Amino acid sequence: MTVTVAVDAMGGDHGPAVTVPASLAFLEAMPDAAVVLVGRAEAIEPLLRKSRSPARDRVRVHAASEVIEMDEPPADALRRKKDSSMRVAINLVKDGVAHGCVSAGNTGALMGIARFVLKTLPGIDRPAIAAQLPTKKGVVTMLDLGANVNCTPEQLVQFAAMGSALVSAVEHIERPTVGLLNIGEEEIKGNDVVKEAAERLRVSGLNFHGNVEGTDIYRGTTDVVVCDGFVGNVALKTSEGLAQMLYEFLKTEFTRGPLSKLVAAIAYPVLMRFKRRIDPRRHNGATLVGLKGVVVKSHGGADVLSFKHALLKAHAEIAEGVLDRIAERIAAMPAGSLGEPLPATQDAASA
Amino acid sequence: MTVTVAVDAMGGDHGPAVTVPASLAFLEAMPDAAVVLVGRAEAIEPLLRKSRSPARDRVRVHAASEVIEMDEPPADALRRKKDSSMRVAINLVKDGVAHGCVSAGNTGALMGIARFVLKTLPGIDRPAIAAQLPTKKGVVTMLDLGANVNCTPEQLVQFAAMGSALVSAVEHIERPTVGLLNIGEEEIKGNDVVKEAAERLRVSGLNFHGNVEGTDIYRGTTDVVVCDGFVGNVALKTSEGLAQMLYEFLKTEFTRGPLSKLVAAIAYPVLMRFKRRIDPRRHNGATLVGLKGVVVKSHGGADVLSFKHALLKAHAEIAEGVLDRIAERIAAMPAGSLGEPLPATQDAASA
Repeated sequence: MTVTVAVDAMGGDHGPAVTVPASLAFLEAMPDAAVVLVGRAEAIEPLLRKSRSPARDRVRVHAASEVIEMDEPPADALRRKKDSSMRVAINLVKDGVAHGCVSAGNTGALMGIARFVLKTLPGIDRPAIAAQLPTKKGVVTMLDLGANVNCTPEQLVQFAAMGSALVSAVEHIERPTVGLLNIGEEEIKGNDVVKEAAERLRVSGLNFHGNVEGTDIYRGTTDVVVCDGFVGNVALKTSEGLAQMLYEFLKTEFTRGPLSKLVAAIAYPVLMRFKRRIDPRRHNGATLVGLKGVVVKSHGGADVLSFKHALLKAHAEIAEGVLDRIAERIAAMPAGSLGEPLPATQDAASA
Repeated sequence: MTVTVAVDAMGGDHGPAVTVPASLAFLEAMPDAAVVLVGRAEAIEPLLRKSRSPARDRVRVHAASEVIEMDEPPADALRRKKDSSMRVAINLVKDGVAHGCVSAGNTGALMGIARFVLKTLPGIDRPAIAAQLPTKKGVVTMLDLGANVNCTPEQLVQFAAMGSALVSAVEHIERPTVGLLNIGEEEIKGNDVVKEAAERLRVSGLNFHGNVEGTDIYRGTTDVVVCDGFVGNVALKTSEGLAQMLYEFLKTEFTRGPLSKLVAAIAYPVLMRFKRRIDPRRHNGATLVGLKGVVVKSHGGADVLSFKHALLKAHAEIAEGVLDRIAERIAAMPAGSLGEPLPATQDAASA
């Protein structure tokens, strides 16, 4: 089967200057793939013509006249821009022309439009944003990273099921461990929503590890970490800020002192290896899980390498049948773990 | 004036083996200070006798027969252990024998007992845990770091006032900037509690910067960052986990490759400088703010240097009159920022 990915060619800080070469690099790496570049032909086609990539014959351009701005209110984008590159790319997924789509555009607009056009999978109230982070042991998949600021216990359980299915499909781990992000390992800690979610997760049939703390994320304690979108977004952005600060401190330390030039020369390749290892570009691509379609969000400031990684992520999710896996996992969950009232709910909520 | 600090000598993973030498080191650095070591005389006195510190004459031992375990449920500790070293140290503050106290013991117990014995300052509903974190520009004071998992908008405003007063007193910044931790800088983002807190902060008379994101913490965008205890605790512990992972990655990178020994030898002093710069021991000591008394919590695993820093923190807060500053700041806040209903509250809550 050919895996066809629709690309919002106009999205992101750099638009076609990044999305077009990244699509060609992706196609060169994936011989079974095809790309539909959605956007303004006059901006896309000159870049294609300029390229000598042998993968050009697996690219098709699909016209869309509008572009959603990075700072445009999502509600406006949804209501007014029916012919935006983002919306048309999502429409192609809905119509079965593409198997999935990738955009580096406005996150809120992407979530709003994808939800409106594609709808959620059966048993899923709201989609979530999932991403992989590096850990001491490998990677962890964390969700929600910002789509839902207020979550019910049932939604947290749905996130757990979706994250688990995603990891099963893409990383080939049969029963991924799931941790619930909390502020203490003891059951008595945490707020009521998290406490009830833990009770529901215990009877969910998922491989529930229990509560985890912030330190466990990068320790790699579990394969999946579940939290509401407010907490997840803060954890993610705090990490970005800290990593950047530490890297700058390190650079400063290596360029001062009497032997600074020698030290810098010797340390440079080491610092580069270090930077590559934690390079967020190699982890680029957050998945909007829970939709009837594969939708991957690239970082807005993505460069070619980074956007290519987001395309590879979409490809893997399509090829491994993530949507079917999520639907199966949700369908297999016993009563009491999702919507149905939990016998102990009253106690848990009032404890 | 002599600044007298009561020390829970039995608290923490190492008890008197750390608290006694740290107290002496603190006294040597601070000629105007005195320490009351609270706990089992038979565990404390041999360590004092062994020391040749000239500061020994500013140490007094106050007997307490019980010890609160690190994993003991706070409610049990509060109810049953009336003669614990932690409780007796707090009693000394209440009775005016000491100006403040420091403990490396069980955080939940310390918060529970301190709140029960000392009570909160007028206008403060609940105490919060505040700590300093390093930033690109210097330091940021963040609160709450775990005492309150569910917060009202009014409580977040109280945290802002307390954090602001703390920074004014200890860092001599007249009008510290205050950021409200959120998931986007636009006003439309965030949950209802945070939105209402922002409205109240705008009329609070504090130097309110507006919403900040996780990345802003280590960027040093504001002097104070305010959030609920769940979010704050996750942000703090996620940072700890990330810093540890990055440091281990770095060590690995410096000890592999053909020139590894040479590189390691040259890079070692640089890594040490780097480590010292972000050394959590130099930032040890979280303040329990909002109480009628100075209470500083040291990390449970603190070593001598680290515990000494917690003592220095308590000393600075006492010497700079933090409690009066908080009381003044709270008293000066206009109607609408704290308890009183806000004109726009209805709209903000239902938006």
